Amino acid sequence: MPDFPPNFFAIEKSDPLCPARAGLIKTPHGLIPTPTFMAVGTRGSVKAVGPDDLTRAGSRIVLANTYHLYLRPGLEVIQLFGGLHKFMGWPGPILTDSGGYQVFSLSAIREISEAGVMFRSPYDGSKTFFTPELVVEAQTALGVDIMMSLDECPPYPSSLAAIEKSLDLTMNWAARGRATWNPRQGQALFGIVQGGFYPATRAQAAQRIAALNFPGHALGGLALGEPLAERLDAIEIARAELPPEKPLYLMGLGTPEDLVEGIKRGADLFDCVLPTRNARNGQLFTRRGRLNILNARHRTDSRPLDPDCQCQTCQTFSRAYLRHLCQNREPLFLRLATIHNLSYYLELTKTAREAILRGAFAEFAKNFYALRAAGESEDS
Amino acid sequence: MPDFPPNFFAIEKSDPLCPARAGLIKTPHGLIPTPTFMAVGTRGSVKAVGPDDLTRAGSRIVLANTYHLYLRPGLEVIQLFGGLHKFMGWPGPILTDSGGYQVFSLSAIREISEAGVMFRSPYDGSKTFFTPELVVEAQTALGVDIMMSLDECPPYPSSLAAIEKSLDLTMNWAARGRATWNPRQGQALFGIVQGGFYPATRAQAAQRIAALNFPGHALGGLALGEPLAERLDAIEIARAELPPEKPLYLMGLGTPEDLVEGIKRGADLFDCVLPTRNARNGQLFTRRGRLNILNARHRTDSRPLDPDCQCQTCQTFSRAYLRHLCQNREPLFLRLATIHNLSYYLELTKTAREAILRGAFAEFAKNFYALRAAGESEDS
Repeated sequence: MPDFPPNFFAIEKSDPLCPARAGLIKTPHGLIPTPTFMAVGTRGSVKAVGPDDLTRAGSRIVLANTYHLYLRPGLEVIQLFGGLHKFMGWPGPILTDSGGYQVFSLSAIREISEAGVMFRSPYDGSKTFFTPELVVEAQTALGVDIMMSLDECPPYPSSLAAIEKSLDLTMNWAARGRATWNPRQGQALFGIVQGGFYPATRAQAAQRIAALNFPGHALGGLALGEPLAERLDAIEIARAELPPEKPLYLMGLGTPEDLVEGIKRGADLFDCVLPTRNARNGQLFTRRGRLNILNARHRTDSRPLDPDCQCQTCQTFSRAYLRHLCQNREPLFLRLATIHNLSYYLELTKTAREAILRGAFAEFAKNFYALRAAGESEDS
Repeated sequence: MPDFPPNFFAIEKSDPLCPARAGLIKTPHGLIPTPTFMAVGTRGSVKAVGPDDLTRAGSRIVLANTYHLYLRPGLEVIQLFGGLHKFMGWPGPILTDSGGYQVFSLSAIREISEAGVMFRSPYDGSKTFFTPELVVEAQTALGVDIMMSLDECPPYPSSLAAIEKSLDLTMNWAARGRATWNPRQGQALFGIVQGGFYPATRAQAAQRIAALNFPGHALGGLALGEPLAERLDAIEIARAELPPEKPLYLMGLGTPEDLVEGIKRGADLFDCVLPTRNARNGQLFTRRGRLNILNARHRTDSRPLDPDCQCQTCQTFSRAYLRHLCQNREPLFLRLATIHNLSYYLELTKTAREAILRGAFAEFAKNFYALRAAGESEDS
C-alpha cells in the first residue's frame, strides 16, 4: 500500500490486559481520536441535529449512506458542491456505508449476481445497477474520508453452504472494489469481514480480507439477532486474523454495552442508529441506565437527564420540561433528546479512550457496569 | 397607575410623517427594543428551535399561551421551577396570551357567561372554568413579563348587536382582570381592544379600554378574514383613541406587509404563527418574496435562501441542501427553516426600528415594497 499515507492510523497506547487500544486516524478532514462513535447521518443529516450540535456533542466523524445519497439528491448534485462535506455543512471526517446493506434490506425488487446488484428506486421505480466498482467510484465522488466496500450481508441464521457462497461473492466484490480504489486521493477504503457465525468461515473471511491490504477493516453481519456470545466470538475470531496495526470498525453496533465489549476486543469505530432513534422515541441513555422520559415520575422532576452529563440539554433543561416537550410532540424534543443521547455515546467512548491512555481500561469497564447495576434503569 | 414603573415604556423617536415610533419596553427579564416581532411558543417552546437559536435569530421576547400551559404541564409544575422562564430555559421577556382565543377556537364544548367560560380539556375531558380573575392569577403564577386580559373575540362578520354584546362582555372581563392585577410584582397587564369592524364600536372599545389605565394595549379580533382596508381602518380608529405613550400590540399579525403597515400605524409588538408554521411547510421568506423550497429549480442551487440574510441557516446551508432535507422529511429541516424565517421577521422589525431612529421610515417602507416587486416570489 505504498500510495496510502503510512500514518493513516497510529496506535497511541494498547491496554496491557486486553486488545483495547487508543489511536488516531488521520484524514483529509481532520484527526479522529479512537475509539469513537459515529453518529448516523444516512441522508447527509444526523436526524434532528445540525453540524453545530454535533460538534458541541463531541462528534469527530459522522456516517452517511451511499445508497440513499445516490438516489437523492444524486451524486451530480453533491459533486456540484465539491463533495458531501460542503453539501451538508459538516467540516469533519465522514465515513460512508457502501449501501449494500440498504440495497438488500430496503429494495423490494433486486437481483444479485456476481456482477453486482440491480435494484429499483423506492422513489420512482427506476433501475439502478450497483457494482463493487461503481460503489467505490460513487464514494470517491462524494469526497468522503473513509469508504466501504460493497458486500453481501447474509441473514442470521444461514446454512454453512449459504455463508460460504455469500462469502465468495463478498470477496469477489472486495477485490474488485480494492482494484478500483485510487489511494492517491487520500480517501481510505475499508474491507468488510463477513463470514457469518461459523468460526471457520468468519476466520477465513478475515484472512481473505486482510490479504487484500485495505487501510482498515470492518466487521459486518453482526447484530442480526444472534446471541451475544456468538457475536463476541465472531468479533474475537475475526480480530485474531486481522493485522492489529489497522483500524477496526464494528458496523451497526450498538448498545452502550456493545461499545464497551467492542472496545475491550480491539474495535476502534462504531456506528448505530440506537442513540438517535431511541432519542426520538423518548428513550434516553444515562450513566445509570436508560429512562423513558414519558414516565409519569418525571412530571415534576427538575433534575437534568443525567447529573454527570455536560451536554447542552442537561446544562439547560429539566426532565420535567423534556417530558412536557415529548408528551406534546414538540419538534424541539427531537433535537434536545438527540443531543443528549449522542453526547452520552461520545462521552462513553471518550472516557474509554482516556482510561486506555492511562492504562486503566479494566477499571473503566468495571465502573461502567457498576453504575448501571446501581442505577435507575426503567428499561423493559 | 402609581405602582407600575413609569418607565415601563419609553418612546425613543417618533416618525415625523406617520405614527411609527421606536421604543423600549423595560421588563424584569430585560429590555425589548420596539417595534419587534414575538415568536410564538404556545406550549413553552417555539416549534423546532431552542432558546439558543432564538437568541441568535435576534428574538428579544417570546410568546406563550396560558390555555395550553394551564392544561399541560399545569401551573403547579411550572411554579415548581419558579416560573415559565426557568421551565423553558428562555431568560428573556415572555408575553402570554390569556388563552381566551384558544378556549373559543379549540374547545368543542364550552359555555360562556358573564362569569367566565367553562370548557372541557381536549386531553381528558375534565371541566375547567376560566374567569378574568383566574386568567390574571394564572399568568402571575407563570411569572411572565406581559400578561393579557381575558377577552371574547367575535367572529367576522358579526352583526352590530352581536359586536355590542360581545364588547360589553370583554369590557366586564377587562375591568375585573385589571382589578385582580397586582402591579407591584412588576408584571405588566395589557388590555385588549375588540369591537369588531364597525368604526363606532371599535372606537368605543378603545376608549373604554384606555379608561381602565392598563400599562399597554393590544388590538384583538384582527386577521379574521376581513378585507385589508377594513383591518387597517380598525387599527387607525383604535389607535386614535389610545394614549400614544403606551405600547401597542397587534395580536396575531401577520405577513411581512402586515408588520410594515402596522408599524406605520404606530404598533410596537406583533406575533403570528406564519413564519414558524410556513417554515415547517417549506415556505420561506426572503427580501425578494417567498419561495417554496421544494420547487425543482432549487435542486442544484448553491446559493443561500437570501443572499442578504445573516442567519445561521443562510451562513451555512444552500437552497439545494435545504430542499434535500425538506424532500426527505429530515427533522433538521424544521429547525433550519424556522431559524431563517424568524431571522427574516426579526431583521425586518429591527431594520424598521433603525429607519425610524434615523427618521427614514418612509424610505424603509418604499425599499421594502420595491425589493419585493422586483423579486423572485413564487407565492401562489
